[in-house]
Amino acid sequence: MKNYFSSDFKLGVLGGGQLGKMLLAETQKYDIYTAILDGSNDAPCAQICNEFHLGNLMDFDDVYKFGKTVDVLTIEIEHVNVNALEKLEAEGIKVYPSSKTLRKIQNKATQKLFFQDHNIPTAEFSRFAFSSEINEALKHGGLSLPFVWKSAQFGYDGTGVKIIKSENDLINLPHGECITEQLIPFKNELAVIVARNPSGEIKTYPVVEMEFHPEANQVEYVICPARIDEKVAKKAQEVALKVADSFKHVGLLAVEMFQTEEDEIIVNEVAPRTHNSGHYSIEASYTSQFEQHLRTVLDLPLGNTQNKVAGIMVNLVGEEGYNGDVIYENIENIMKIDGVTPHIYGKKQTRPFRKMGHVTIINKDINKAREIAAEVKKTIKVISK
Amino acid sequence: MKNYFSSDFKLGVLGGGQLGKMLLAETQKYDIYTAILDGSNDAPCAQICNEFHLGNLMDFDDVYKFGKTVDVLTIEIEHVNVNALEKLEAEGIKVYPSSKTLRKIQNKATQKLFFQDHNIPTAEFSRFAFSSEINEALKHGGLSLPFVWKSAQFGYDGTGVKIIKSENDLINLPHGECITEQLIPFKNELAVIVARNPSGEIKTYPVVEMEFHPEANQVEYVICPARIDEKVAKKAQEVALKVADSFKHVGLLAVEMFQTEEDEIIVNEVAPRTHNSGHYSIEASYTSQFEQHLRTVLDLPLGNTQNKVAGIMVNLVGEEGYNGDVIYENIENIMKIDGVTPHIYGKKQTRPFRKMGHVTIINKDINKAREIAAEVKKTIKVISK
Repeated sequence: MKNYFSSDFKLGVLGGGQLGKMLLAETQKYDIYTAILDGSNDAPCAQICNEFHLGNLMDFDDVYKFGKTVDVLTIEIEHVNVNALEKLEAEGIKVYPSSKTLRKIQNKATQKLFFQDHNIPTAEFSRFAFSSEINEALKHGGLSLPFVWKSAQFGYDGTGVKIIKSENDLINLPHGECITEQLIPFKNELAVIVARNPSGEIKTYPVVEMEFHPEANQVEYVICPARIDEKVAKKAQEVALKVADSFKHVGLLAVEMFQTEEDEIIVNEVAPRTHNSGHYSIEASYTSQFEQHLRTVLDLPLGNTQNKVAGIMVNLVGEEGYNGDVIYENIENIMKIDGVTPHIYGKKQTRPFRKMGHVTIINKDINKAREIAAEVKKTIKVISK
Repeated sequence: MKNYFSSDFKLGVLGGGQLGKMLLAETQKYDIYTAILDGSNDAPCAQICNEFHLGNLMDFDDVYKFGKTVDVLTIEIEHVNVNALEKLEAEGIKVYPSSKTLRKIQNKATQKLFFQDHNIPTAEFSRFAFSSEINEALKHGGLSLPFVWKSAQFGYDGTGVKIIKSENDLINLPHGECITEQLIPFKNELAVIVARNPSGEIKTYPVVEMEFHPEANQVEYVICPARIDEKVAKKAQEVALKVADSFKHVGLLAVEMFQTEEDEIIVNEVAPRTHNSGHYSIEASYTSQFEQHLRTVLDLPLGNTQNKVAGIMVNLVGEEGYNGDVIYENIENIMKIDGVTPHIYGKKQTRPFRKMGHVTIINKDINKAREIAAEVKKTIKVISK
């Protein structure tokens, strides 16, 4: 085996945003030489990786040329040129997660078909080559209101998802390929992160419970462990394991799920990478999701996924009405509270709902943590100068 | 107050070794723009800071010029040009810890005199301008065997300290200024890290217990919390607070102490910075010593110093008989064990007793952690190719 802990090994990462930045904290801890490819010289990782390469993640040549310079190639974000990854794999570069898995996950229609093919519980859906076809389907009774519209490509952080309650909601939807999904009444939105290494060792993190902002469709609180019945938690972990196993996934797989009113678990969607729902793990878990991601792609033994203490994460998103040079108002005030850790991603400009950072609250008592989280949310504001 | 969490603020750090590297993980978390001055382009921090400056930490011009480019200047190591710091302070740069404190601590004779002047319990000592004067003192009965010899300047990691049991042990001692100290029989070596910010907020970490390698005089295990009587722990924390308060110290102060056979606490020496005895805090504490250091020098509120779980640290030092390109033998095996985290400092060359990294073992049960620590120590070896 190649000695990763020495200077002749190079890890490549596609994407240099906040997820890449938090991964770099782990590659630095293990002294893993890391090169980053990103489309912007202002990317959060640009100044703090061993090597920074400027290039377009969707461009075949940029990804291929970068990949040829590394020993193991991984991703920070799934929207990358998969053809380039396929060629790199054929030429012996280790690519985790694989091009095959990424191709299935990148497109939400393909992802849903994969779930159906593998008997993974998921909401019923229809696939449309153009969103204009949705009106036709409504007219002919092939579809009925309300439903969830999702862009098949590049949905991220609430863009690309919309609940359609009336035909008016269809106006100004993006035109491209999309799916519509049955709207499922649910008790809870849950997520489970699964880690799997190339040797097949597999572990799940505890179930987390998510609360979304009602308008922006972005997570407000991620609570770990989820305050749900143990049987439901066990079922959620089993479903997540089944999903990761079906993909023969290598790396982390974040499985987002609904707990229905009948306590059934159905899969909403998956992300083949470190995930917002796992940020709590940096402070709360024995092994953070970023360290675990690194362990998986280097085929190292997986770390303990249990919590040391309860963890709650609050996203720091730009306030409505503010655009420009960012200020984190009252950040000193939240830092006075025990067990509160802000993470600032290093994006210089704020805009409404932009993810600028997150705050983790840890406490031995989850109810106390939840109280502090509400206090944090009320206190800190992401505004502009 | 200057908004630290924005790009127009710059933190400067003198020294870019492993302590600087672990500090950078925290400046990155808070997105604090950080410049590093170090004497080597191969320093662990060189590639991962926002700005790297090559220069000699003991050179007036190098330190002064670097300091003029930053808003707040701090240190990774205390052996820096203090005259330059004094001039920078006079010109309005915030320097933490202050030149005044560093001047007192840099020289072990001055440090001991300071303890005496402030009624801080410490072993009796004598001061010599040249170590050759020790033989004279022995002849004339001003000094008797055994005793501890310490170089007044630049003692670090076991170099610069020697137990003198016979006159033969005096042969080949470095010639410069030194002190000799009474050899104190002790039950335990303890340490307490104190954090103090410019506003005067002050907190101590729990007492840690240290076990030293019998030959290399380097720490083998650091155990937190120390398995000592609560009264002794309280006394150790009080003494540490008194020391930090006497210096009006800003930053972290690691206070190394002996617990005598009569359960008295006497101060051995202090280090005005993050310290090997606090590395356990990265995984075990609510606030790691590196985050706390950053909070102190930026005059932010101090974080919770308590443990989430028990922590034990094992130093990774070069095995005897190996020199050259480093290999961390069996690192994968220790990573299989729950709660074991290696930290690799990124020094490419090993040599006997060189500090190459450390491993933290965390567990809810301190006795279980201690068992695992012994297993870790037995398993991993720092050797060369």
